[in-house]
Amino acid sequence: MPINIPETDKERIVVVGAGFGGFMLARKLLKSDYQVVLIDRNNYHQFQPLFYQVAMAGLEPSSIAFPLRKAFQRSKNVHLRVAEMEKVDTTAKQIQTDLGVLNYDHLVLATGAVTNFFGNNEMEKHAYSLKSIGESLQLRNAIFEDLERALVTRDYDERQGFIDVVIVGGGPTGVELAGALAEMKKYILPKDYPELDQKEVDIYLIQSGDRLLPGMSEKAGRKALQFLEELGVTVKLGTRVTAFNGELVETKDGQSIRAHKVVWAAGIVCDKIQGVSETCFAKGNRLCINEHLEVAHLNDVYAIGDAASLTSDEYPYGHPQVAQPAIQQAKYLAKQFKTGKKGNGFTYRDLGSMATIGRNKAVADLNKRSLTGFIAWAMWLFVHLFALVGVKNKLFVVLNWMWNYFTYDQSLRLIIKSEPKKGNV
Amino acid sequence: MPINIPETDKERIVVVGAGFGGFMLARKLLKSDYQVVLIDRNNYHQFQPLFYQVAMAGLEPSSIAFPLRKAFQRSKNVHLRVAEMEKVDTTAKQIQTDLGVLNYDHLVLATGAVTNFFGNNEMEKHAYSLKSIGESLQLRNAIFEDLERALVTRDYDERQGFIDVVIVGGGPTGVELAGALAEMKKYILPKDYPELDQKEVDIYLIQSGDRLLPGMSEKAGRKALQFLEELGVTVKLGTRVTAFNGELVETKDGQSIRAHKVVWAAGIVCDKIQGVSETCFAKGNRLCINEHLEVAHLNDVYAIGDAASLTSDEYPYGHPQVAQPAIQQAKYLAKQFKTGKKGNGFTYRDLGSMATIGRNKAVADLNKRSLTGFIAWAMWLFVHLFALVGVKNKLFVVLNWMWNYFTYDQSLRLIIKSEPKKGNV
Repeated sequence: MPINIPETDKERIVVVGAGFGGFMLARKLLKSDYQVVLIDRNNYHQFQPLFYQVAMAGLEPSSIAFPLRKAFQRSKNVHLRVAEMEKVDTTAKQIQTDLGVLNYDHLVLATGAVTNFFGNNEMEKHAYSLKSIGESLQLRNAIFEDLERALVTRDYDERQGFIDVVIVGGGPTGVELAGALAEMKKYILPKDYPELDQKEVDIYLIQSGDRLLPGMSEKAGRKALQFLEELGVTVKLGTRVTAFNGELVETKDGQSIRAHKVVWAAGIVCDKIQGVSETCFAKGNRLCINEHLEVAHLNDVYAIGDAASLTSDEYPYGHPQVAQPAIQQAKYLAKQFKTGKKGNGFTYRDLGSMATIGRNKAVADLNKRSLTGFIAWAMWLFVHLFALVGVKNKLFVVLNWMWNYFTYDQSLRLIIKSEPKKGNV
Repeated sequence: MPINIPETDKERIVVVGAGFGGFMLARKLLKSDYQVVLIDRNNYHQFQPLFYQVAMAGLEPSSIAFPLRKAFQRSKNVHLRVAEMEKVDTTAKQIQTDLGVLNYDHLVLATGAVTNFFGNNEMEKHAYSLKSIGESLQLRNAIFEDLERALVTRDYDERQGFIDVVIVGGGPTGVELAGALAEMKKYILPKDYPELDQKEVDIYLIQSGDRLLPGMSEKAGRKALQFLEELGVTVKLGTRVTAFNGELVETKDGQSIRAHKVVWAAGIVCDKIQGVSETCFAKGNRLCINEHLEVAHLNDVYAIGDAASLTSDEYPYGHPQVAQPAIQQAKYLAKQFKTGKKGNGFTYRDLGSMATIGRNKAVADLNKRSLTGFIAWAMWLFVHLFALVGVKNKLFVVLNWMWNYFTYDQSLRLIIKSEPKKGNV
């Protein structure tokens, strides 16, 4: 049964995923001569770069989520459906979703990536990850629940399990999370938990490579390490976690750490898409695309963002899986649709990258210049604020940041759960 | 095994529940000569009068929740434990909790009330209620999930089930919720869901008595009815819901309404407390207390707020179960503890009551004067803002209200769920 969409004689573009790429594309196609159907499993666009601040009780989920229907209010040509894609049928030119089938003239796969546990089921079962707002709230709740448990635990070793946190992965997510946790330990714990000895709290950052932030300059990596060590984080380079049963973390260099919370930020991978031939996939299950962003071997199917891989001499494994390539590709593709003809081919313009470690502490690589400290931190704030969707979200995030900055006190340390109504599941 | 609490030679007051009463009492006992242990099942104080705004996507949960540890930061004599009381043992002078036992010298039961389904298990299973932030989020998610479902439902009757809402109970909660829903239908639906015919959306308010707001003046009830009808709410007086199976609502006057969402705001009742003799309980399982707020027949046990019933000629069934009696009793009891002697007996000072129906539409009874319309509405905003705990919460709520007022557009229409990490339950 096809999904109920108003009839029209326009060509239909189906966009799967409302992350940076899919969301931008649909926005750019507002009032175009296409009927656009945007599907996502959530009814909001989420701003991934700030998930870690939700997990650290610094921001409310709603500040970094933007309701899709608000973004496309009163739109006559863009239709939203909260649905999950199950399968693509490129012969019939339709996709299968949990709501029914959806026919397309053009299909854009902006399906993003998921956490890569490298096949480690034990890790997938017990470790936390930060790939959605829901997961960020899971981690926030777990941190504060465990602090409450630590308070009533007399045994030292057992208590360690509740308060120590192990972060795996030395990329931006791992680094930002470790820094934020260390600041929480420093500024919040002594005030909120005077009965706990904050010296007992250990934060570990484990990175398999020999440096932090491998996607950034060598100076940025070195400085991030220095900032983290100043904040009291135990950074372990050149080792990896070999096992975690929910209680005990084992590392390759023979250490065991008692901790209930492992945050896995060690990599991402794409979910394979049912119905798409094996030959279309590159490394990490990314879809091979050409310079016009068309998926190799398929007709009228495009891919953008984390899910797509456009290789070049400069990027032999495709562009980095961050917001900028997705946004730039979306703009390119929108233009291609609107003009109805192919452009000169997509080229990625690297605007630089940055990571923040704590207050006044960040690193940024811009145009081969590497900045650190307060200036990088101020720039980080500005760039992220600017990129957030919605005036109200910008306002509330900036107010929250100012509040937290001046009071040294985020005030969202709440354990709030919203389970579905049991009778109605 | 006793719960781990720092040792002291002070007398210990155990306060059960951090609602308006328990929270205020503990605040007033800061730096007193008692060791105070405050327990609650949540790590935050919640501001019940605004739950309905969370359910209606007008406010964030965090704006009306205040972390307990923040309220008692660095306190040396007040200790917080996230725990649930299971049983009282007045002979051994201890309570049993899910964390272990807790001895007391003085016990204050500020345990509040829960939704009264009057023994209707079917209703309890399927209906939504608004007695916690978690329940408010449940309702918020259900409203927006059902709107999404309605969009892809072709059958008229089936669609009605997703979009119609039945509210049971004509007290302040029912009236405020019905008004807020009607405003959402009027201002939000046409913008966010242009594909839905808003005329199909019906909001029912069902009240068994012959008037709305029975706790307020006759004028307030009449005006509330007029405001709701102006907003398009179908108010049905003098009837009741006889059955609801999650799909179909049956009323006593023979109507059936197809609706998946029934919000039950028809009454509250106290949970019986294990270990307390039957003779201590009054109507609605409230604990009988004397003018010194001591529970009848027990030594060193006090009760305040919704859980307590102090009868007088003016209040033959005890004070109304709202915030003010709880707050006033907490202040009285704190003074009694601090001076170490009994006062002249508690008397309740009625500060009036109010309910808001929509923008510029409210009713208020103050000192035998009854106000309606804009002036009552402005007063309602002011009083609620003033009563909220925390400068930041006040700031964020006022900003949200201003935003919503001027844009006619709350922007929190998010379906966010945070289930616990599955492997770690």
